Amino acid sequence: LRLLTLARDLRRRKARERQGLFVVEGVRAVEELLRSSLRVEGVLVAPGLADAPRGAALREQLEARGAPMLDVSARDFASAADTETPQGVLAIAAAPALSLDALVVPPAARLLVLDGVQDPGNAGTLLRTAAALGALATLALPGTVDLWNAKVVRSAMGAQFHHPSLACTWEELDRFRSVHRVALWAADMGGAPLAVAVAAEEGPPARLALAVGNEGNGLSAAARARAERLVSLPIAPAVESLNVAVAAGILLYELRA
Amino acid sequence: LRLLTLARDLRRRKARERQGLFVVEGVRAVEELLRSSLRVEGVLVAPGLADAPRGAALREQLEARGAPMLDVSARDFASAADTETPQGVLAIAAAPALSLDALVVPPAARLLVLDGVQDPGNAGTLLRTAAALGALATLALPGTVDLWNAKVVRSAMGAQFHHPSLACTWEELDRFRSVHRVALWAADMGGAPLAVAVAAEEGPPARLALAVGNEGNGLSAAARARAERLVSLPIAPAVESLNVAVAAGILLYELRA
Repeated sequence: LRLLTLARDLRRRKARERQGLFVVEGVRAVEELLRSSLRVEGVLVAPGLADAPRGAALREQLEARGAPMLDVSARDFASAADTETPQGVLAIAAAPALSLDALVVPPAARLLVLDGVQDPGNAGTLLRTAAALGALATLALPGTVDLWNAKVVRSAMGAQFHHPSLACTWEELDRFRSVHRVALWAADMGGAPLAVAVAAEEGPPARLALAVGNEGNGLSAAARARAERLVSLPIAPAVESLNVAVAAGILLYELRA
Repeated sequence: LRLLTLARDLRRRKARERQGLFVVEGVRAVEELLRSSLRVEGVLVAPGLADAPRGAALREQLEARGAPMLDVSARDFASAADTETPQGVLAIAAAPALSLDALVVPPAARLLVLDGVQDPGNAGTLLRTAAALGALATLALPGTVDLWNAKVVRSAMGAQFHHPSLACTWEELDRFRSVHRVALWAADMGGAPLAVAVAAEEGPPARLALAVGNEGNGLSAAARARAERLVSLPIAPAVESLNVAVAAGILLYELRA
């Protein structure tokens, strides 16, 4: 029953950080996990997983991989799962040990900086977007939801299994940017329209980190103090803002290396 | 108690369609509603709304507006609310009576076409994105979630209070496109890269409807049969797809009139 206790424990951020482990829920997400190089610590299975062909295939794949597997009751499974209607499979995996220092930075690079993004669904979609649009890494600055939270993992749809995703402080990011000459731009409603900023610079910097702020309050003072440019996307006056993942998607696409 | 019964009833799509009414939940969304021209049929209030200054101000505003208001118990409120942790205010409003025929189409226009988008959160974010990026309207084709579903309304953050949002059939859209000479492009992983498609046309058509498909299955046969161009956004091979609202945001921005 160690796996069941462990899975329950990993719902807490502190436990995830201490153990270097996180939880992946659902058939599709666990399939993605198996396609990655992350170590699978163990798997919880609820009755009925193997009833559907896809679930049965996943179970076989997990067995072939030799991952420790525990069959539990539906009730026990629910006590560990984060989803309301769990799909009967939950894997515990090792979070990749990453640090800013270990990132290899190519001559042209984009990084996404999450400056206090709090909604797990948004954070997950941001990770998925950054990975899809070829960003080198996504960095979670203080005030941002834990990137290994089960809801973030679910909405990232496997992005952080291969896309470097890590938390760091502003001081660590300062050092990294200074060593690797990475510019910092930040999305802000009051900033210069994107096209104007790009024209003023004669194209975006070769190495660029793009910061997006909190859903309600926007950028932190720390981000404002550091950003070399604040950029905005022109939107209709009747609309308060774009969703943060949509805004980041447009900006990362427009500013692609 | 008519308002309580009505609010409960409006959780069903059929009831919303028959009555031409929908439900708006939460302080912020009801504030947005009051800024719009939509008729407020009535308001349910749970104990405690006026405890916070913002809730008290909203209550005063609702009273000034003369909207019929019913104070209900927390339990009754929860029985009508869609959210798990309701904020104690829920308004019933009249959905705008809109039809494709009534849309005034300027010389350059963009429309967003939802072709089987099923997740309410995605549909709401798509409405918010289309409204922000200046689209003329968002059209829900068969297979798409009801745009007046409470979850859609919540994630649209008030977009459909002013942005024309309506359901139609493919045949109605055919007629509209033919009358107003509106081109149809559709987002598809197998389509031409966006930049290639735009270059081939020497810029996007003046009047353009952009279709995005179902989250899992992509475009419908009906959309594929009609689209003059299938366009794609180049993404990293390790990532299966962009979130549909992020993809639509990038495409609407890139193809803006």
